[in-house]
Amino acid sequence: MSAVEDRIAELGLAIPQLVPPVAAYVPALLDDDRIWVSGQLPMVDGAMPGTGLVGEGEGLVSPEDAAAMAGASALNGIAAIKSVFEDLDRIRIVKVVGYVASAPGFTGQPAVINGASVLLGQIFGDNGTHARAAVGVAGLPLNAPVEVELVARVLG
Amino acid sequence: MSAVEDRIAELGLAIPQLVPPVAAYVPALLDDDRIWVSGQLPMVDGAMPGTGLVGEGEGLVSPEDAAAMAGASALNGIAAIKSVFEDLDRIRIVKVVGYVASAPGFTGQPAVINGASVLLGQIFGDNGTHARAAVGVAGLPLNAPVEVELVARVLG
Amino acid sequence: MSAVEDRIAELGLAIPQLVPPVAAYVPALLDDDRIWVSGQLPMVDGAMPGTGLVGEGEGLVSPEDAAAMAGASALNGIAAIKSVFEDLDRIRIVKVVGYVASAPGFTGQPAVINGASVLLGQIFGDNGTHARAAVGVAGLPLNAPVEVELVARVLG
Repeated sequence: MSAVEDRIAELGLAIPQLVPPVAAYVPALLDDDRIWVSGQLPMVDGAMPGTGLVGEGEGLVSPEDAAAMAGASALNGIAAIKSVFEDLDRIRIVKVVGYVASAPGFTGQPAVINGASVLLGQIFGDNGTHARAAVGVAGLPLNAPVEVELVARVLG
Repeated sequence: MSAVEDRIAELGLAIPQLVPPVAAYVPALLDDDRIWVSGQLPMVDGAMPGTGLVGEGEGLVSPEDAAAMAGASALNGIAAIKSVFEDLDRIRIVKVVGYVASAPGFTGQPAVINGASVLLGQIFGDNGTHARAAVGVAGLPLNAPVEVELVARVLG
Repeated sequence: MSAVEDRIAELGLAIPQLVPPVAAYVPALLDDDRIWVSGQLPMVDGAMPGTGLVGEGEGLVSPEDAAAMAGASALNGIAAIKSVFEDLDRIRIVKVVGYVASAPGFTGQPAVINGASVLLGQIFGDNGTHARAAVGVAGLPLNAPVEVELVARVLG
């Protein structure tokens, strides 16, 4: 098992089953030494742990719950990476785009997407340091509160 | 004519005139062997085939119409690619980002952006398989219902 | 001083202090000859020059003010680039994604993001020509009206 997979286990996590795309595309594409990972939803065991817009207030997904879901999305992204490149110890995460389905007035997208960023740092160490954008969108596929897209690189 | 252009013709389509950027940028940029395609709107013969938000209900663009527009956006993206690299048989589509101007509560972005993904598969075959993100945004330039951004690669 | 920095000075501007990330990521990442710049907010001297949604009307950020903020975001992006690669004369801007926090019905995102695109052209000349996407989002971190993400390349 790779050092990266050891750390995933130490965190009490496991690389999930690959989430099949909900449409006509692939979960990840290996393009020379670049890996483009499709937007990942926070599916856990095939189900969405919550749906709706993120914000503070009745009927909204709390930023804390959304941050946990951003972590689940990142974990699905790791499964997608592994589906095209087996050895995770040679993977460098370079870029994250985090989309947060945001209720009107919600501006806490950075803390939500930290759920992905912090986890990637815990799992990949220095190879998990990444550039990032976090934005609030109007809605996401399957009513997911978050979607996380990754770009990674295979180290020589 | 390239095999890719043959397939475009067999689908009853044609590579459209290059849509001039609505602002201070270029339709596509060749960067070593990578091609970055600007966000493409679904202009057909210089006109937008429909405007507004996508959703189910009165006054909204239907998901079916939006999917057709996503295909038109992808076709404009192919014109943009051809403007920087002539031989489409050496083009590999690697990444698609699809933005859908979404009415509140609309979560069917994947089916809309399939209008682009499926068409790219029909046109480029194996070279059209791509990673993808689809998100619902608040609004798009010129009130377009969809915008599609591509990353492609020139095969050696 | 580099020619690029001369032009920045001629425009009456200065490369700002690097804006520290608001979360667990880095402002820019040098990945071989590619530079991925995190989404940049329009902070000026550590403060946001305005907040809220962009649109026409009472209580909204005007498209003109938002365009100026897009320029400020781009300038912060240049500071981020310089933090990972000193010589700006060897930098090629390849891609810009501009997110505009948009009031319902606002579709003038291209003119807003031109505030970044035009400035990049003035500063980098031919090396500032880029592919671009501009979209309207529901909300942005810290209630910023705009966020600008860049991809650049180091010239050999």
